Amino acid sequence: MEPGNFADALIEAVRRKQSQVVVGLDPRLERLPAELRPRVDDRADPAAAADAIMAFNRAVVDAVADHAVAVKPQIAFYEQWGCEGMRAYSDSLSYARGRGLLTIGDVKRSDIASTAEAYAAAHLGSADASAAPDFVADAVTVNPYLGSDGVQPFLAAAAARGRGVFMLVKTSNPSSAELQDLDCGGMPLYERVAGLVAQWGEAWRGENGYSLLGAVVGATYPGELARLRALMSHAPFLVPGFGAQGGGVEDVLGAFDERGEGAIVNSSRGIIFAWQRELYASSYGEERWRDAVRAAAADMQERIWRATH
Amino acid sequence: MEPGNFADALIEAVRRKQSQVVVGLDPRLERLPAELRPRVDDRADPAAAADAIMAFNRAVVDAVADHAVAVKPQIAFYEQWGCEGMRAYSDSLSYARGRGLLTIGDVKRSDIASTAEAYAAAHLGSADASAAPDFVADAVTVNPYLGSDGVQPFLAAAAARGRGVFMLVKTSNPSSAELQDLDCGGMPLYERVAGLVAQWGEAWRGENGYSLLGAVVGATYPGELARLRALMSHAPFLVPGFGAQGGGVEDVLGAFDERGEGAIVNSSRGIIFAWQRELYASSYGEERWRDAVRAAAADMQERIWRATH
Repeated sequence: MEPGNFADALIEAVRRKQSQVVVGLDPRLERLPAELRPRVDDRADPAAAADAIMAFNRAVVDAVADHAVAVKPQIAFYEQWGCEGMRAYSDSLSYARGRGLLTIGDVKRSDIASTAEAYAAAHLGSADASAAPDFVADAVTVNPYLGSDGVQPFLAAAAARGRGVFMLVKTSNPSSAELQDLDCGGMPLYERVAGLVAQWGEAWRGENGYSLLGAVVGATYPGELARLRALMSHAPFLVPGFGAQGGGVEDVLGAFDERGEGAIVNSSRGIIFAWQRELYASSYGEERWRDAVRAAAADMQERIWRATH
Repeated sequence: MEPGNFADALIEAVRRKQSQVVVGLDPRLERLPAELRPRVDDRADPAAAADAIMAFNRAVVDAVADHAVAVKPQIAFYEQWGCEGMRAYSDSLSYARGRGLLTIGDVKRSDIASTAEAYAAAHLGSADASAAPDFVADAVTVNPYLGSDGVQPFLAAAAARGRGVFMLVKTSNPSSAELQDLDCGGMPLYERVAGLVAQWGEAWRGENGYSLLGAVVGATYPGELARLRALMSHAPFLVPGFGAQGGGVEDVLGAFDERGEGAIVNSSRGIIFAWQRELYASSYGEERWRDAVRAAAADMQERIWRATH
């Protein structure tokens, strides 16, 4: 049986859950609730760190499972804890999948040819099982700097396995302009990259018109979102930077098509550490941190859904 | 005690060993010698794969230890084997370090702010031990697409720990031109990136004048090497693409300064699978694969040293 197209699976999940919310699983030990934070003596113990991260992620996934369409663990926060951390990354993906969530590995990998194939096998799976399944997610993020050699192996693996790829186009950090906004023949570099996303993704469109190749476009640049939507009309957008990084609902609307589809929006700290935000701190103390996480996910779900439907 | 500057340590090691050779530890199961290759039944068993990779890497490190200044494991080939593979990555770094080799983690990571800090802690170590040491190398490769937010955390970590960073500038793959050669105001994008390397690295120069921030510049574009050398006069160059990817000694000479210093050259397949090359196959069969690996490293060492000194 041919696997389906990732964009179709994503759209179907969004419709079913009425949610365009992606929850970033970016655990920082020092911000975990006290009940889970490793004791000071254990702060440098990778096994204790990984255990704390897993306990936290399980609780977060349970809290957001009804309100989010996907989770997006940022692999750096797991690599930091070495082999123990990578086990927690793997277990977090499995746990989220078991709760009916799509998984997006925020790995931003980039390399060429056979090396990109190895990364693709690691993070999207391999057809002949010549790779471990530990780090396989439903979709991954990739970096465009090396050109098509670095991206095509991911597209081939994604197509073979019904998975997806989100390529960095315009990121949400302050210094993204240093390269991404450079004038390349009358348009900024990121619009050139947008053109490559449109071109490379064209061959991989599903029944809903969207491609398995999507784009990462930061919500901190709302003016650019609508223009990028037009340049990449068939690319699902993954929009980070909502909440903690400053973007609000009005800032992400440009990412959606006229049916209110074609984009998912990520919040990490704004949801997973919601009880530390002024907005939720008064209603929920740290003792009710799980409820604050759930409330933040539900609020974000409702606000974006209402604005787009 | 302040840790020293990585560029000084690198130059000192090159002088001592009279070698500018970096051996890429990019294990591909299907190319391992039959004595180490997992049995067909075990081809999809990550533990068997990781064991085979480690046995191979130990033998390669032993064979090249006298002829190379550093090894550069490409982490994709370890991620492919999941948690077991990551343990092999960690063990390979330790083993090479124990044999007196510098280690360069070819991870090409890219992310922003606190995420880049987490990657830097993972791969260059953390001052307060709030990270596992498993994946820490003497230097790492990074991707420039996100701008200074994505690179400064690596530089800070490297400076604090006496380690180094090599930023992708011009890669050796055919499609590197798609982005890297785009005309950005009268110069290709990669020259803009070279300017950033020069600028960001200026603050981190050691006694020999070189910075802990280096550049990855492919040997498949020899004409550009000398120009990039001039644009980044204080950046150590890591030159991949020697041997298997087509570059020869004459192609890498432009990477060196007038003293024959300031660059190291990587070969992966050309050395670690040397007995499969026509050049060595007749003198060494597979039964003498270790000797072929040693001979290939020694030949490369001598050819580059003679051409630069």
